[in-house]
Amino acid sequence: MTSNPPSPQTERGDAARNREKLLNIAGQIIAEQGIDGLTMDELARRAATGKGTIFRRFGNRAGLLDSLLSHTEEDFQRSLIFGPPPLGPGATAKERLLAYGVAAIDRFEVTGELQRAADEVGDRRFNSRVAEFHRMHVSMLLRAGKVAVDASALALVLLSALHPSLLEYQRKTAGMDAGRQKALWEFLVERVVGDPAA
Amino acid sequence: MTSNPPSPQTERGDAARNREKLLNIAGQIIAEQGIDGLTMDELARRAATGKGTIFRRFGNRAGLLDSLLSHTEEDFQRSLIFGPPPLGPGATAKERLLAYGVAAIDRFEVTGELQRAADEVGDRRFNSRVAEFHRMHVSMLLRAGKVAVDASALALVLLSALHPSLLEYQRKTAGMDAGRQKALWEFLVERVVGDPAA
Repeated sequence: MTSNPPSPQTERGDAARNREKLLNIAGQIIAEQGIDGLTMDELARRAATGKGTIFRRFGNRAGLLDSLLSHTEEDFQRSLIFGPPPLGPGATAKERLLAYGVAAIDRFEVTGELQRAADEVGDRRFNSRVAEFHRMHVSMLLRAGKVAVDASALALVLLSALHPSLLEYQRKTAGMDAGRQKALWEFLVERVVGDPAA
Repeated sequence: MTSNPPSPQTERGDAARNREKLLNIAGQIIAEQGIDGLTMDELARRAATGKGTIFRRFGNRAGLLDSLLSHTEEDFQRSLIFGPPPLGPGATAKERLLAYGVAAIDRFEVTGELQRAADEVGDRRFNSRVAEFHRMHVSMLLRAGKVAVDASALALVLLSALHPSLLEYQRKTAGMDAGRQKALWEFLVERVVGDPAA
Protein backbone atom coordinates (compact mmCIF):
# COMPACT_ATOMS: atom_id res chain seq x y z
CA MET A 1 0.00 0.00 0.00
CA THR A 2 1.17 3.49 -0.83
CA SER A 3 0.55 6.36 1.57
CA ASN A 4 -1.75 9.21 0.62
CA PRO A 5 -0.10 12.17 -1.09
CA PRO A 6 0.72 14.98 1.36
CA SER A 7 -1.52 18.04 1.16
CA PRO A 8 0.12 21.18 -0.27
CA GLN A 9 -0.08 22.79 3.20
CA THR A 10 2.22 20.17 4.75
CA GLU A 11 4.84 20.49 2.05
CA ARG A 12 7.70 22.83 2.68
CA GLY A 13 10.74 24.06 0.77
CA ASP A 14 12.45 21.28 -1.16
CA ALA A 15 9.39 19.05 -1.17
CA ALA A 16 7.18 21.74 -2.73
CA ARG A 17 9.86 22.61 -5.29
CA ASN A 18 10.31 18.94 -6.16
CA ARG A 19 6.56 18.51 -6.57
CA GLU A 20 6.37 21.51 -8.89
CA LYS A 21 9.32 20.21 -10.91
CA LEU A 22 7.59 16.84 -11.33
CA LEU A 23 4.33 18.49 -12.42
CA ASN A 24 6.15 20.64 -14.95
CA ILE A 25 7.78 17.53 -16.41
CA ALA A 26 4.39 15.79 -16.45
CA GLY A 27 3.01 18.71 -18.45
CA GLN A 28 5.87 18.44 -20.95
CA ILE A 29 5.24 14.73 -21.39
CA ILE A 30 1.57 15.35 -22.22
CA ALA A 31 2.47 18.17 -24.62
CA GLU A 32 4.84 15.81 -26.46
CA GLN A 33 3.06 12.47 -26.30
CA GLY A 34 -0.56 13.14 -25.40
CA ILE A 35 -2.23 12.17 -22.16
CA ASP A 36 -1.70 8.43 -22.69
CA GLY A 37 2.04 9.02 -22.72
CA LEU A 38 1.97 10.22 -19.12
CA THR A 39 2.57 7.14 -16.97
CA MET A 40 4.18 6.87 -13.56
CA ASP A 41 7.09 5.02 -15.23
CA GLU A 42 7.65 7.67 -17.86
CA LEU A 43 7.52 10.47 -15.28
CA ALA A 44 10.08 8.68 -13.09
CA ARG A 45 12.33 8.13 -16.11
CA ARG A 46 12.14 11.74 -17.34
CA ALA A 47 12.58 13.17 -13.84
CA ALA A 48 15.49 10.77 -13.21
CA THR A 49 13.90 9.83 -9.91
CA GLY A 50 12.67 6.62 -8.29
CA LYS A 51 9.20 5.34 -9.08
CA GLY A 52 8.58 5.05 -5.32
CA THR A 53 8.99 8.81 -4.97
CA ILE A 54 6.39 9.41 -7.68
CA PHE A 55 3.89 7.07 -6.03
CA ARG A 56 4.51 8.55 -2.55
CA ARG A 57 3.97 12.00 -3.99
CA PHE A 58 0.80 11.46 -6.06
CA GLY A 59 -0.71 8.18 -4.85
CA ASN A 60 -1.49 6.87 -8.33
CA ARG A 61 -1.87 8.01 -11.91
CA ALA A 62 -5.34 9.50 -11.28
CA GLY A 63 -3.84 11.46 -8.37
CA LEU A 64 -1.07 12.70 -10.65
CA LEU A 65 -3.57 13.87 -13.29
CA ASP A 66 -5.66 15.65 -10.63
CA SER A 67 -2.60 17.37 -9.21
CA LEU A 68 -1.49 18.42 -12.68
CA LEU A 69 -4.87 19.97 -13.48
CA SER A 70 -4.96 21.90 -10.18
CA HIS A 71 -1.35 22.98 -10.67
CA THR A 72 -1.84 24.35 -14.19
CA GLU A 73 -5.14 25.97 -13.19
CA GLU A 74 -3.52 27.70 -10.21
CA ASP A 75 -0.63 28.83 -12.39
CA PHE A 76 -3.03 30.22 -14.97
CA GLN A 77 -5.17 32.03 -12.39
CA ARG A 78 -2.08 33.49 -10.73
CA SER A 79 -0.76 34.84 -14.01
CA LEU A 80 -4.17 36.43 -14.76
CA ILE A 81 -4.29 38.20 -11.40
CA PHE A 82 -0.64 38.86 -10.53
CA GLY A 83 1.36 38.08 -13.67
CA PRO A 84 3.04 40.53 -16.03
CA PRO A 85 1.00 42.19 -18.80
CA PRO A 86 -0.62 41.49 -21.17
CA LEU A 87 -2.06 38.50 -19.29
CA GLY A 88 -1.91 40.27 -15.93
CA PRO A 89 -2.68 43.89 -15.00
CA GLY A 90 -0.93 46.73 -16.81
CA ALA A 91 -2.27 46.27 -20.33
CA THR A 92 -5.59 47.48 -21.81
CA ALA A 93 -8.69 45.35 -21.35
CA LYS A 94 -8.61 44.37 -25.02
CA GLU A 95 -4.93 43.36 -24.86
CA ARG A 96 -5.60 41.30 -21.76
CA LEU A 97 -8.58 39.57 -23.38
CA LEU A 98 -6.50 38.76 -26.46
CA ALA A 99 -3.75 37.32 -24.26
CA TYR A 100 -6.29 35.38 -22.23
CA GLY A 101 -7.59 33.46 -25.25
CA VAL A 102 -4.11 32.80 -26.63
CA ALA A 103 -3.04 31.42 -23.23
CA ALA A 104 -6.20 29.28 -22.98
CA ILE A 105 -5.50 27.78 -26.42
CA ASP A 106 -1.87 27.09 -25.51
CA ARG A 107 -2.99 25.53 -22.26
CA PHE A 108 -5.39 23.25 -24.10
CA GLU A 109 -2.35 21.42 -25.57
CA VAL A 110 -1.38 20.26 -22.11
CA THR A 111 -4.55 19.99 -20.07
CA GLY A 112 -7.35 19.92 -22.65
CA GLU A 113 -8.19 16.26 -22.09
CA LEU A 114 -8.01 16.65 -18.32
CA GLN A 115 -10.28 19.70 -18.43
CA ARG A 116 -12.80 17.90 -20.62
CA ALA A 117 -12.85 14.90 -18.31
CA ALA A 118 -13.33 17.14 -15.24
CA ASP A 119 -16.17 19.03 -16.96
CA GLU A 120 -18.10 15.86 -17.65
CA VAL A 121 -18.77 15.39 -13.95
CA GLY A 122 -22.32 16.68 -13.50
CA ASP A 123 -22.84 20.34 -14.18
CA ARG A 124 -19.24 21.44 -13.81
CA ARG A 125 -19.00 23.02 -17.22
CA PHE A 126 -20.84 26.07 -15.91
CA ASN A 127 -21.16 25.44 -12.20
CA SER A 128 -17.66 25.00 -10.79
CA ARG A 129 -15.44 27.41 -8.89
CA VAL A 130 -13.01 27.28 -11.79
CA ALA A 131 -15.71 28.14 -14.34
CA GLU A 132 -16.87 30.96 -12.09
CA PHE A 133 -13.37 32.38 -11.73
CA HIS A 134 -12.93 32.57 -15.50
CA ARG A 135 -16.37 34.03 -16.03
CA MET A 136 -15.65 36.77 -13.51
CA HIS A 137 -12.23 37.49 -15.02
CA VAL A 138 -13.56 37.80 -18.57
CA SER A 139 -16.63 39.79 -17.42
CA MET A 140 -14.35 42.22 -15.61
CA LEU A 141 -12.24 42.78 -18.73
CA LEU A 142 -15.33 43.16 -20.93
CA ARG A 143 -16.73 45.75 -18.53
CA ALA A 144 -13.39 47.59 -18.53
CA GLY A 145 -13.49 47.39 -22.34
CA LYS A 146 -16.90 49.10 -22.24
CA VAL A 147 -18.83 46.47 -24.19
CA ALA A 148 -22.27 47.65 -25.23
CA VAL A 149 -24.10 44.63 -23.81
CA ASP A 150 -24.46 42.61 -20.56
CA ALA A 151 -20.80 41.75 -19.85
CA SER A 152 -21.40 38.57 -17.87
CA ALA A 153 -23.71 37.16 -20.54
CA LEU A 154 -21.18 37.96 -23.24
CA ALA A 155 -18.42 36.39 -21.11
CA LEU A 156 -20.33 33.09 -21.12
CA VAL A 157 -20.49 33.14 -24.91
CA LEU A 158 -16.83 34.08 -25.35
CA LEU A 159 -15.77 31.36 -22.93
CA SER A 160 -17.75 28.84 -24.98
CA ALA A 161 -15.43 29.75 -27.85
CA LEU A 162 -12.48 28.59 -25.70
CA HIS A 163 -14.12 25.58 -24.11
CA PRO A 164 -11.95 22.46 -24.36
CA SER A 165 -14.71 20.44 -26.05
CA LEU A 166 -15.01 23.08 -28.79
CA LEU A 167 -11.23 23.47 -29.16
CA GLU A 168 -10.98 19.68 -29.40
CA TYR A 169 -13.64 19.50 -32.11
CA GLN A 170 -11.95 22.30 -34.06
CA ARG A 171 -8.61 20.49 -33.94
CA LYS A 172 -9.68 16.91 -34.56
CA THR A 173 -12.66 17.25 -36.87
CA ALA A 174 -12.70 20.74 -38.34
CA GLY A 175 -8.97 20.69 -39.13
CA MET A 176 -8.11 23.95 -37.36
CA ASP A 177 -4.65 24.38 -35.84
CA ALA A 178 -3.72 26.58 -32.88
CA GLY A 179 -2.91 29.48 -35.22
CA ARG A 180 -6.40 29.51 -36.71
CA GLN A 181 -7.98 29.15 -33.27
CA LYS A 182 -6.04 32.18 -32.05
CA ALA A 183 -6.95 34.17 -35.17
CA LEU A 184 -10.62 33.43 -34.54
CA TRP A 185 -10.31 34.56 -30.90
CA GLU A 186 -8.61 37.79 -32.00
CA PHE A 187 -11.38 38.44 -34.50
CA LEU A 188 -14.03 37.97 -31.80
CA VAL A 189 -12.31 40.22 -29.27
CA GLU A 190 -11.62 42.93 -31.84
CA ARG A 191 -15.26 42.90 -32.85
CA VAL A 192 -16.98 42.78 -29.47
CA VAL A 193 -14.77 45.13 -27.44
CA GLY A 194 -15.14 48.84 -27.93
CA ASP A 195 -17.40 50.83 -30.18
CA PRO A 196 -16.97 49.91 -33.85
CA ALA A 197 -18.49 53.25 -34.84
CA ALA A 198 -15.93 55.20 -32.80
CA MET B 1 -48.47 -4.69 -25.95
CA THR B 2 -48.70 -1.62 -28.14
CA SER B 3 -47.76 -1.74 -31.81
CA ASN B 4 -44.80 0.25 -33.12
CA PRO B 5 -45.59 3.74 -34.40
CA PRO B 6 -45.97 3.84 -38.20
CA SER B 7 -43.09 5.45 -40.12
CA PRO B 8 -43.87 8.87 -41.64
CA GLN B 9 -43.65 7.29 -45.12
CA THR B 10 -46.63 4.99 -44.50
CA GLU B 11 -48.85 7.77 -43.24
CA ARG B 12 -51.14 9.42 -45.70
CA GLY B 13 -53.60 12.27 -45.67
CA ASP B 14 -55.71 12.36 -42.54
CA ALA B 15 -53.29 10.24 -40.53
CA ALA B 16 -50.38 12.59 -41.25
CA ARG B 17 -52.47 15.65 -40.46
CA ASN B 18 -53.69 14.07 -37.25
CA ARG B 19 -50.12 13.24 -36.25
CA GLU B 20 -49.02 16.81 -36.90
CA LYS B 21 -51.96 18.16 -34.92
CA LEU B 22 -51.03 15.93 -31.95
CA LEU B 23 -47.39 17.02 -32.09
CA ASN B 24 -48.37 20.69 -32.18
CA ILE B 25 -50.52 20.18 -29.11
CA ALA B 26 -47.65 18.31 -27.43
CA GLY B 27 -45.42 21.34 -28.12
CA GLN B 28 -48.00 23.67 -26.57
CA ILE B 29 -48.21 21.50 -23.45
CA ILE B 30 -44.42 21.66 -22.98
CA ALA B 31 -44.39 25.42 -23.56
CA GLU B 32 -47.03 25.84 -20.86
CA GLN B 33 -46.11 23.20 -18.28
CA GLY B 34 -42.55 22.12 -19.01
CA ILE B 35 -41.49 18.73 -20.28
CA ASP B 36 -42.79 16.88 -17.21
CA GLY B 37 -46.26 18.13 -18.02
CA LEU B 38 -46.31 16.22 -21.29
CA THR B 39 -47.83 12.84 -20.49
CA MET B 40 -49.82 10.50 -22.73
CA ASP B 41 -52.88 11.25 -20.56
CA GLU B 42 -52.53 15.01 -20.84
CA LEU B 43 -52.02 14.83 -24.61
CA ALA B 44 -55.16 12.66 -25.00
CA ARG B 45 -57.13 15.08 -22.82
CA ARG B 46 -56.00 18.22 -24.66
CA ALA B 47 -56.45 16.64 -28.08
CA ALA B 48 -59.90 15.32 -27.05
CA THR B 49 -58.92 11.92 -28.38
CA GLY B 50 -58.60 8.40 -26.97
CA LYS B 51 -55.47 7.38 -25.13
CA GLY B 52 -55.33 4.28 -27.32
CA THR B 53 -54.88 6.48 -30.39
CA ILE B 54 -51.96 8.28 -28.74
CA PHE B 55 -50.27 4.99 -27.85
CA ARG B 56 -50.87 3.50 -31.31
CA ARG B 57 -49.41 6.62 -32.87
CA PHE B 58 -46.26 7.08 -30.75
CA GLY B 59 -45.68 3.76 -28.96
CA ASN B 60 -44.85 5.32 -25.59
CA ARG B 61 -43.84 8.60 -24.01
CA ALA B 62 -40.22 8.29 -25.20
CA GLY B 63 -41.50 7.73 -28.74
CA LEU B 64 -43.68 10.81 -28.42
CA LEU B 65 -40.73 12.94 -27.27
CA ASP B 66 -38.55 11.62 -30.14
CA SER B 67 -41.28 12.33 -32.67
CA LEU B 68 -41.76 15.82 -31.26
CA LEU B 69 -38.06 16.64 -31.51
CA SER B 70 -37.86 15.39 -35.14
CA HIS B 71 -41.06 17.27 -35.97
CA THR B 72 -39.92 20.61 -34.59
CA GLU B 73 -36.45 20.15 -36.12
CA GLU B 74 -37.94 19.42 -39.56
CA ASP B 75 -40.23 22.42 -39.24
CA PHE B 76 -37.32 24.64 -38.28
CA GLN B 77 -35.11 23.40 -41.12
CA ARG B 78 -37.93 23.80 -43.63
CA SER B 79 -38.53 27.39 -42.58
CA LEU B 80 -34.81 28.17 -42.90
CA ILE B 81 -34.64 26.78 -46.43
CA PHE B 82 -38.09 27.42 -47.89
CA GLY B 83 -39.87 29.69 -45.42
CA PRO B 84 -40.68 33.37 -45.81
CA PRO B 85 -38.02 35.99 -45.00
CA PRO B 86 -36.36 36.93 -42.74
CA LEU B 87 -35.86 33.30 -41.62
CA GLY B 88 -35.95 31.98 -45.19
CA PRO B 89 -34.48 33.41 -48.41
CA GLY B 90 -35.30 36.95 -49.47
CA ALA B 91 -33.73 38.94 -46.64
CA THR B 92 -30.10 40.02 -46.20
CA ALA B 93 -27.64 37.60 -44.61
CA LYS B 94 -27.56 39.71 -41.46
CA GLU B 95 -31.36 39.83 -41.19
CA ARG B 96 -31.52 36.06 -41.68
CA LEU B 97 -28.88 35.47 -39.00
CA LEU B 98 -30.75 37.71 -36.58
CA ALA B 99 -33.98 35.83 -37.27
CA TYR B 100 -32.19 32.48 -36.92
CA GLY B 101 -31.06 33.20 -33.36
CA VAL B 102 -34.42 34.61 -32.31
CA ALA B 103 -36.15 31.49 -33.67
CA ALA B 104 -33.63 29.21 -31.92
CA ILE B 105 -34.27 30.97 -28.60
CA ASP B 106 -38.06 30.70 -29.09
CA ARG B 107 -37.68 27.03 -29.98
CA PHE B 108 -35.68 26.41 -26.83
CA GLU B 109 -38.88 27.04 -24.83
CA VAL B 110 -40.48 23.96 -26.35
CA THR B 111 -37.68 21.55 -27.18
CA GLY B 112 -34.70 22.76 -25.14
CA GLU B 113 -34.79 19.85 -22.71
CA LEU B 114 -35.30 17.34 -25.52
CA GLN B 115 -32.40 18.81 -27.47
CA ARG B 116 -30.13 18.71 -24.44
CA ALA B 117 -31.03 15.09 -23.74
CA ALA B 118 -30.38 14.13 -27.39
CA ASP B 119 -27.00 15.90 -27.35
CA GLU B 120 -25.80 13.96 -24.36
CA VAL B 121 -25.68 10.76 -26.40
CA GLY B 122 -21.99 10.42 -27.29
CA ASP B 123 -20.55 13.14 -29.48
CA ARG B 124 -23.81 14.38 -30.92
CA ARG B 125 -23.32 17.95 -29.83
CA PHE B 126 -20.97 18.51 -32.75
CA ASN B 127 -21.21 15.30 -34.74
CA SER B 128 -24.84 14.80 -35.72
CA ARG B 129 -26.63 15.47 -39.00
CA VAL B 130 -28.70 18.09 -37.21
CA ALA B 131 -25.60 19.88 -35.87
CA GLU B 132 -24.08 19.74 -39.34
CA PHE B 133 -27.17 21.20 -40.98
CA HIS B 134 -27.15 24.20 -38.64
CA ARG B 135 -23.41 24.70 -39.01
CA MET B 136 -23.74 24.76 -42.79
CA HIS B 137 -26.71 27.11 -42.67
CA VAL B 138 -24.98 29.63 -40.38
CA SER B 139 -21.68 29.33 -42.30
CA MET B 140 -23.50 30.07 -45.54
CA LEU B 141 -25.08 33.20 -44.07
CA LEU B 142 -21.77 34.35 -42.57
CA ARG B 143 -20.06 33.91 -45.93
CA ALA B 144 -22.86 35.84 -47.64
CA GLY B 145 -22.41 38.49 -44.95
CA LYS B 146 -18.72 38.70 -45.91
CA VAL B 147 -17.26 38.01 -42.48
CA ALA B 148 -13.54 38.71 -42.31
CA VAL B 149 -12.64 35.32 -40.82
CA ASP B 150 -13.12 31.57 -41.47
CA ALA B 151 -16.93 31.36 -41.69
CA SER B 152 -17.32 27.74 -40.60
CA ALA B 153 -15.12 28.27 -37.53
CA LEU B 154 -17.10 31.36 -36.59
CA ALA B 155 -20.35 29.44 -37.15
CA LEU B 156 -19.29 26.92 -34.49
CA VAL B 157 -18.72 29.71 -31.98
CA LEU B 158 -21.98 31.49 -32.78
CA LEU B 159 -23.90 28.23 -32.50
CA SER B 160 -22.36 27.70 -29.05
CA ALA B 161 -24.09 30.92 -28.06
CA LEU B 162 -27.44 29.30 -28.94
CA HIS B 163 -26.72 25.83 -27.60
CA PRO B 164 -29.53 24.55 -25.37
CA SER B 165 -27.12 23.86 -22.47
CA LEU B 166 -25.93 27.50 -22.56
CA LEU B 167 -29.46 28.89 -22.99
CA GLU B 168 -30.56 26.72 -20.06
CA TYR B 169 -27.74 27.98 -17.84
CA GLN B 170 -28.51 31.59 -18.79
CA ARG B 171 -32.19 31.12 -17.89
CA LYS B 172 -31.91 29.05 -14.73
CA THR B 173 -28.71 30.28 -13.11
CA ALA B 174 -27.71 33.57 -14.70
CA GLY B 175 -31.24 34.99 -14.53
CA MET B 176 -31.50 35.95 -18.20
CA ASP B 177 -34.89 35.93 -19.89
CA ALA B 178 -35.60 35.37 -23.59
CA GLY B 179 -35.44 39.11 -24.26
CA ARG B 180 -31.91 39.42 -22.91
CA GLN B 181 -30.84 36.28 -24.78
CA LYS B 182 -32.14 37.76 -28.02
CA ALA B 183 -30.45 41.11 -27.32
CA LEU B 184 -27.14 39.30 -26.82
CA TRP B 185 -27.57 37.41 -30.10
CA GLU B 186 -28.36 40.66 -31.92
CA PHE B 187 -25.25 42.28 -30.45
CA LEU B 188 -23.09 39.36 -31.63
CA VAL B 189 -24.50 39.32 -35.15
CA GLU B 190 -24.25 43.10 -35.51
CA ARG B 191 -20.63 42.95 -34.43
CA VAL B 192 -19.35 39.99 -36.42
CA VAL B 193 -21.15 40.50 -39.73
CA GLY B 194 -19.87 43.13 -42.10
CA ASP B 195 -17.00 45.54 -41.81
CA PRO B 196 -17.25 47.73 -38.70
CA ALA B 197 -14.93 50.28 -40.33
CA ALA B 198 -17.16 50.60 -43.41
